[in-house]
Amino acid sequence: MTNKVNLADKFSLFTDHWNPRVVGELNGQQVKIVKFQGEFIWHKHDEEDELFYVVAGQFNMEFRDKTITLKENEFLIVPRGVEHRPVADKEVSVMLFEPSTTLNTGNTKSELTRETLEKI
Amino acid sequence: MTNKVNLADKFSLFTDHWNPRVVGELNGQQVKIVKFQGEFIWHKHDEEDELFYVVAGQFNMEFRDKTITLKENEFLIVPRGVEHRPVADKEVSVMLFEPSTTLNTGNTKSELTRETLEKI
Repeated sequence: MTNKVNLADKFSLFTDHWNPRVVGELNGQQVKIVKFQGEFIWHKHDEEDELFYVVAGQFNMEFRDKTITLKENEFLIVPRGVEHRPVADKEVSVMLFEPSTTLNTGNTKSELTRETLEKI
Repeated sequence: MTNKVNLADKFSLFTDHWNPRVVGELNGQQVKIVKFQGEFIWHKHDEEDELFYVVAGQFNMEFRDKTITLKENEFLIVPRGVEHRPVADKEVSVMLFEPSTTLNTGNTKSELTRETLEKI
């Protein structure tokens, strides 16, 4: 259906961290939103490129050889196979664009892994 | 490569309307940015769903049976096969997510059709 999505409204529906919600689907891809705070785990996705877009706040994306600080209205594409770890000193609101098959922790299963995501 | 994209920087690189630029590619999809002003043409995409995200400003997406006003930090997914026409009273900055194969005017060739897009 053709209904618009207001990101502020969607972000107001949850408060937990590292738990992506699905807010849109198209062409086998999903649009997800998530709040980051603290340190995530090192992981990679063998089959999926992953786009991170900052809606509010900022965070650091750590790679094995560098760190990139992402601020509001900036995005970063992490290619498949590249290890990465998001770290946020303060809470940050992030939109993700990636294939529907993408698991949040990639190749590293942990208590942070979310096998099924809520659609909001 | 893993370099971030700052949307404000990219939007500052052009002034023309209805001429999308490619600012990212992943999983067979492209991230494009475009400035709308005035009325586009009615068209549809037979094979591609198309996401419109407003970075700054607002515009109306007209459908045959309704019109949706999209404002900053809102997005709309237009499913394949659905006729649509963007109309912007004032200039609006828009980000698109869609398959790399997507032609801006879909099934309606016109002087607005852009067969090849600049990557910036």
